[in-house]
Amino acid sequence: MGKVITIGRQFGSGGREVGKRLAEELSYNYYDKELIKKISEESGLDIDYVENQSEQHTNQTLPYLVGKSFMAYTQPIDTINIELHIAQNTVLKEIAEKENAVIIGRSADYILKEENPLKVFIYASDMDYRIERCYNKVPEDRAKSKKEMQKEILKIDKKRASYYEFTTDQKWSNLGNYNLCIDTSKVGIKGAVEIIKAALLQEI
Amino acid sequence: MGKVITIGRQFGSGGREVGKRLAEELSYNYYDKELIKKISEESGLDIDYVENQSEQHTNQTLPYLVGKSFMAYTQPIDTINIELHIAQNTVLKEIAEKENAVIIGRSADYILKEENPLKVFIYASDMDYRIERCYNKVPEDRAKSKKEMQKEILKIDKKRASYYEFTTDQKWSNLGNYNLCIDTSKVGIKGAVEIIKAALLQEI
Repeated sequence: MGKVITIGRQFGSGGREVGKRLAEELSYNYYDKELIKKISEESGLDIDYVENQSEQHTNQTLPYLVGKSFMAYTQPIDTINIELHIAQNTVLKEIAEKENAVIIGRSADYILKEENPLKVFIYASDMDYRIERCYNKVPEDRAKSKKEMQKEILKIDKKRASYYEFTTDQKWSNLGNYNLCIDTSKVGIKGAVEIIKAALLQEI
Repeated sequence: MGKVITIGRQFGSGGREVGKRLAEELSYNYYDKELIKKISEESGLDIDYVENQSEQHTNQTLPYLVGKSFMAYTQPIDTINIELHIAQNTVLKEIAEKENAVIIGRSADYILKEENPLKVFIYASDMDYRIERCYNKVPEDRAKSKKEMQKEILKIDKKRASYYEFTTDQKWSNLGNYNLCIDTSKVGIKGAVEIIKAALLQEI
């Protein structure tokens, strides 16, 4: 059995960066987009569709191309979603079985709860911090007002919350789902990494 | 200006113990019951009344004795509450101005937000952990079933949440109110202390 750290994260809080740095420092495997590829391979579903479903489960459009054969897909959306979720569970359980890993999003905290991961949630209590991070990441977004950026950020959070609640029947922002919740607008990305490393040493 | 760490906590999660150990290790002043005494002195309100109001703002019974004079109190409850809250704000601001301190409960995270404290919330995602802690603290409570203990624990949490929401207009369990939320059923009391110490070094 490997050691897994799951990271849920508010959009713009830097959760991915925290996870990436943490995985590098601990020499753990890192799964974000990498997970999408694995799920696509496991399920045979198109990679774009798998990615899309990760944050937008309410999106009811059918994937126009599926699998490696590039054939039009004709199964009903619910069946596809079930296939996707089975593949996701299989992939996550396999990772937890064999590897030390940092896994971003995808309700991994819930799916792997029997495997006893360290469940982390990264957020930023200061909205300006999130907006500034978004501006820095996509400089052309500076044309958008802060108010517009905030609206976009909250919209993406809403999709993540909706995906989490859909797959787990739990509230995304309920701290009882996690073991450690860290405000990057208070401690920064590097700080969050150090805090998680401290927590790893303390597990009982 | 001193450095303040505020600690909100679920009942039975060990938040007080975390705060006490942290204060000892950092040589910070520790405020829990000590705060109640100061607020009582500042306001002239009876110490039992001040203590009672900290977790039970919905309790509408008048204090039977108030202040140092042990005279029956005749002011309406709302006026008393306002006096109490003014005194509490004054005392907390004075502490933050002059001292390094760990402060337990009393919505200190909200009242001192301008003073930029490290705002910590201690919880335990595993209810059995909380129940066991309660049994250990009050051994005669072992006569009560787990179900009864859970009911009591949740009742006290509800009072704390109600007090917090009454004084801050914010949800007690909303992680956005805090900078760091730690699950003691995952990392233990000592672990939580180490994690907070790590966070203190990382503040930006």
